[in-house]
Amino acid sequence: MKAHTGHVVPVILSGGSGTRLWPMSTPERPKQFLALTGNETMFQLTAARTADPARFSPPIIVANARHAALIDVQLSAIGMIPDAVILEPMARNSAPAIALAALAAPESVLLVMPSDHVIADTDAFGSAVSRGLPFAEAGWLVTFGITPDAPETGFGYIRSGDPLGEGVVAVDRFIEKPDHMRAEAMIAEGGHCWNGGIFLMRGQAYLDALGIHAPEILGACETAMSAARFNGAKIHPDEGAFSSSPATSIDYAVMEKADRVAMVPIDMGWSDVGSWDAIHALAEADAAGNAVRGDVQLEDSSGCLIETDGIRISGAGLQDLIVIASGNEVLILPRGKSQEARRFAK
Amino acid sequence: MKAHTGHVVPVILSGGSGTRLWPMSTPERPKQFLALTGNETMFQLTAARTADPARFSPPIIVANARHAALIDVQLSAIGMIPDAVILEPMARNSAPAIALAALAAPESVLLVMPSDHVIADTDAFGSAVSRGLPFAEAGWLVTFGITPDAPETGFGYIRSGDPLGEGVVAVDRFIEKPDHMRAEAMIAEGGHCWNGGIFLMRGQAYLDALGIHAPEILGACETAMSAARFNGAKIHPDEGAFSSSPATSIDYAVMEKADRVAMVPIDMGWSDVGSWDAIHALAEADAAGNAVRGDVQLEDSSGCLIETDGIRISGAGLQDLIVIASGNEVLILPRGKSQEARRFAK
Repeated sequence: MKAHTGHVVPVILSGGSGTRLWPMSTPERPKQFLALTGNETMFQLTAARTADPARFSPPIIVANARHAALIDVQLSAIGMIPDAVILEPMARNSAPAIALAALAAPESVLLVMPSDHVIADTDAFGSAVSRGLPFAEAGWLVTFGITPDAPETGFGYIRSGDPLGEGVVAVDRFIEKPDHMRAEAMIAEGGHCWNGGIFLMRGQAYLDALGIHAPEILGACETAMSAARFNGAKIHPDEGAFSSSPATSIDYAVMEKADRVAMVPIDMGWSDVGSWDAIHALAEADAAGNAVRGDVQLEDSSGCLIETDGIRISGAGLQDLIVIASGNEVLILPRGKSQEARRFAK
Repeated sequence: MKAHTGHVVPVILSGGSGTRLWPMSTPERPKQFLALTGNETMFQLTAARTADPARFSPPIIVANARHAALIDVQLSAIGMIPDAVILEPMARNSAPAIALAALAAPESVLLVMPSDHVIADTDAFGSAVSRGLPFAEAGWLVTFGITPDAPETGFGYIRSGDPLGEGVVAVDRFIEKPDHMRAEAMIAEGGHCWNGGIFLMRGQAYLDALGIHAPEILGACETAMSAARFNGAKIHPDEGAFSSSPATSIDYAVMEKADRVAMVPIDMGWSDVGSWDAIHALAEADAAGNAVRGDVQLEDSSGCLIETDGIRISGAGLQDLIVIASGNEVLILPRGKSQEARRFAK
């Protein structure tokens, strides 16, 4: 690994199984590799967000091995050369994925980001990273707390503790995905943020915490990386070793248990783009609230999201309908029910 | 033409432009050639309705020349050999189409039927033909009046006049497609039937009436048939002559004007299958009112009609929606609005 002292190393996690935005999103091409929110894919937007060479080193990508070619194509399309592309032989959730990156760059401060989220206000994001950086350099595990605008039940929450500095607080505790009543109570109480899965920390600080709270994961990942196969920027961790790691999220394995966990609250127009309803909310709609992409003929309709990558869709008199056509599949759901996409995804 | 004295000659009209059941129905394959209501096409069902050799001669088909191959295939699939297939070089509406058939069999009693209607009670139809036959043989133009069950605005109506015999009345007058108020008034008044476009008459009686009320049509069709090209059972009327005929319906050209027009009122489970809503009404639905055909995954939905001839359609939480996929086209409409299919048909 090249050393980039003083710079932050972006770590882009390309996980996810591609079920919530089916049929566009599939295991072969999950949503981060699709241009669902603009002309670039969310993976490209994530990489471009940390492209400033004055602040960031080239990124480390951690992805499923089956997506290696997609990653090459999508990074070169935006002129980005990664520091490393770590290709997981199978998915083992975020704690092992981040461990692989931390083992590749233990002395660097890592900015860990999911590749399938949208951030509208990148300036706000940049400022938040700056506020968190001194804490990360001092050994804190820093997380970013998204200012909630609704009692969402699909995210974990983080409760603020004591202030640590300008715009940085200690974490009182992590709260797993709540039911609706609990979510409403947290919003009413204030001081709670959504857990957006973005982290800033020294690689070694994470590895140390992993050694204390999840030593099996650390051991498996260390073996996988010391037996790894290298091919240019591509790193193939050893399959047998990596497969022996527990599949655990970073929140559950480390964050909920570690000392010196800080949070930077931010309001940055964040979305996890976790459903077709979220896509509709992000999309540019006409005066009647319709957002269409592809070969669509729509008349006398309102509040619809209609996207197709091939076949033509014609509709009239439709209200609040989601219609997504990809290849030989068409999905039709009422708006507000788009989580149902999952039941049809294979 | 072979003579079949004493038998009725079915005349099957294959017209229609294929717009109301788009995208399944297209100009290349209009709805009569599709199996939309069962395992056989409506064209086949129409031909089979008059297959009894004790009562009917082999049929005369009048169709657009572009459908010659479809007709061959669909008739041979049900083991039927037509007397003649008259292939119109272009559509000129029903008065000229029937004139071509009447010129081919002037001495026969013709039972003229559209090929794209459904008749559930074929016994009732057979009885009605029997009731009308003596009148047709005596030179009357006999029409069949469908007992109306709703104030439809998509059909012409026929007002009953004086009784002529058992189940046969004189026609008081023909009424063009009414507005809703007028349709309701006719239903309330009683004595009005829908004009189903089915006729029973001697060929010569029709030609005589045409000579009086629409001599231009008769002249054009006589020239077209005398200059026709014959190829086995196929008859190709002369294009130049036929194209000079006015394009007029039999109702407007003859029925509304002729003397000795009789009506046999019948209740026979008739549908003109004129929309996807009509298909839904005819289809076998599950307990929730959903009728599906093809590769469809439907959950928690009610009152839907979903048909596909290829691509898979998946839906959940849908109410009263019509979804039709054919080839590279998908049409989506609310139930009750299926006449909107027309606006998308090319």
